[in-house]
Amino acid sequence: MTFSEINRIFEENDNFTILTHKSPDGDTLGCGFALCEFLRRMGKKANVLNSEGFPDRYNFIYEGYYEQQFEEKYVIAVDIADTILLGHNLERYAKEGAIDLCIDHHISNKHYAKQTYVDPDASAAALIMYKIFKESGRQITKHIAESLYTGIATDTGCFKYENTTPEAHRISAELMELGIDFTTINRKMFDVKSKARLRIEQSVARHMEYYFDDRCSLIVLTKEMMEEAGVEASEFEGLASIPLSVEGVLIGITIKQRHENVYKISVRTTEAVDASAFCKNFGGGGHIRAAGCEIHAPLAEVRSMLLMQADKELNGTKE
Amino acid sequence: MTFSEINRIFEENDNFTILTHKSPDGDTLGCGFALCEFLRRMGKKANVLNSEGFPDRYNFIYEGYYEQQFEEKYVIAVDIADTILLGHNLERYAKEGAIDLCIDHHISNKHYAKQTYVDPDASAAALIMYKIFKESGRQITKHIAESLYTGIATDTGCFKYENTTPEAHRISAELMELGIDFTTINRKMFDVKSKARLRIEQSVARHMEYYFDDRCSLIVLTKEMMEEAGVEASEFEGLASIPLSVEGVLIGITIKQRHENVYKISVRTTEAVDASAFCKNFGGGGHIRAAGCEIHAPLAEVRSMLLMQADKELNGTKE
Repeated sequence: MTFSEINRIFEENDNFTILTHKSPDGDTLGCGFALCEFLRRMGKKANVLNSEGFPDRYNFIYEGYYEQQFEEKYVIAVDIADTILLGHNLERYAKEGAIDLCIDHHISNKHYAKQTYVDPDASAAALIMYKIFKESGRQITKHIAESLYTGIATDTGCFKYENTTPEAHRISAELMELGIDFTTINRKMFDVKSKARLRIEQSVARHMEYYFDDRCSLIVLTKEMMEEAGVEASEFEGLASIPLSVEGVLIGITIKQRHENVYKISVRTTEAVDASAFCKNFGGGGHIRAAGCEIHAPLAEVRSMLLMQADKELNGTKE
Repeated sequence: MTFSEINRIFEENDNFTILTHKSPDGDTLGCGFALCEFLRRMGKKANVLNSEGFPDRYNFIYEGYYEQQFEEKYVIAVDIADTILLGHNLERYAKEGAIDLCIDHHISNKHYAKQTYVDPDASAAALIMYKIFKESGRQITKHIAESLYTGIATDTGCFKYENTTPEAHRISAELMELGIDFTTINRKMFDVKSKARLRIEQSVARHMEYYFDDRCSLIVLTKEMMEEAGVEASEFEGLASIPLSVEGVLIGITIKQRHENVYKISVRTTEAVDASAFCKNFGGGGHIRAAGCEIHAPLAEVRSMLLMQADKELNGTKE
């Protein structure tokens, strides 16, 4: 599909439903609401749906949004690789033929829609969306630009992650020229934490264990700890990056309890160690710097299995 | 001055000393070592000097660097607004006429050098340096590109700060196309902390005080706390951003003890409050979101003076 074909679809259809993925992030929401505004400004009717509703922290993206009444005629999925990611409340769209168009950047895209535009080289789906809008020649408003910038910034960890491309920078430059308030967006997305999250991070850092001359660090999150904190499970996400954030650490391990004697392991590494190979020893896998596995055993055993493997890996490397 | 005039200076001179500012950061070092390599590849002799030596965390910038022996004939200052920033060990260059050329991006530049190129709109001096190198048509090596990228990334807080420009993004895109390992650079610059720093941040967060429905947060760093930690003073820098990192906080205050009854105050605010106006009440000043002052009084009094002012400011704002 070309961008002009996609723009023709926008022109020739009406009454759009835009689907975003469950546990919504900045990219799916940024694309969803940017597209919704773009279509409405064309005189079309359009709504954005999410299985769980829209999280507070993205309120600047959906500020001013209201649901329109219409009989749905065309369904577009944005940033959704697989219908399983629609979530419980949008399951009705998981059936064959329910989704007309999918715009995505995941290499794992399942091509479940009638038509699919997928660019796995795009750092974020928002980059594809921007290029579609730009091709149309129509106005890209400040709000559309802020929504798309949010998608790019969150999916690239503010231009830090490996998936950041020169294009992500160049399109961000163009979005900045549309007057976006990127400082406020970045503060909200990257610098602000809830009090609960701050407390959890403190506790995690305080209980961090160090091994092998501080080249390996390890944290344990038990069900008890998570229940005691008395906060939403989402507050416990992304903690796996903490063990590797300590200077000199080459392997950072996070052990998270799922059930009695069932532990989910996240392994993060620097250049010196292959996280994916590490986790394969325990039936898991992933990327070279971030991988995972699940181990069924008591905690003490889980810890010692992981440390033995870490010792082996570290003996094959030099600082 | 034009970029081609600067390149002519590089061609027509030799035996260069490149000066970087004290308490060196990624921009001054990135520019310094990039320029040094650029000149040496032209067949020139060049050294980089710093008053205090080069910090460990930037070792990837000066890896492979060695001092050359020569009689200094031309002196260039990079990213140095004022000769006072040369530091104790480079004081000999503070005298009139000692520095031939200054390349800088600070609006406050004192024009102390015989010739000065200053662009206050540049997010980092590294952007100016890149444009000079590019104008020359000479090769920009991967190492030069990594040094310059470090300058841009550190001076813009990885593209988060207000000073980030579209040009900063565009030039970063060009640097990425030279094959730089931006993932490792960003990890080193933004994600890695010493064990001591992690411990200090925990302690600070644990002792954070909240006031006025959590719209104001406050931390106190006493001399005792800093001595007890038994680490370099530099480990205590940049903590002032922590109080404002909590969701809902509009005013974040850091009280740092200098001496008995002498406290240095840092105030950080969101859009709702003017930090500079806040600090003017105590004889200080600064920017609209980050300002400071010094108060001579016992701690309890300092705290209550600041809280009374915060209360006043918050009553003039709405969440």
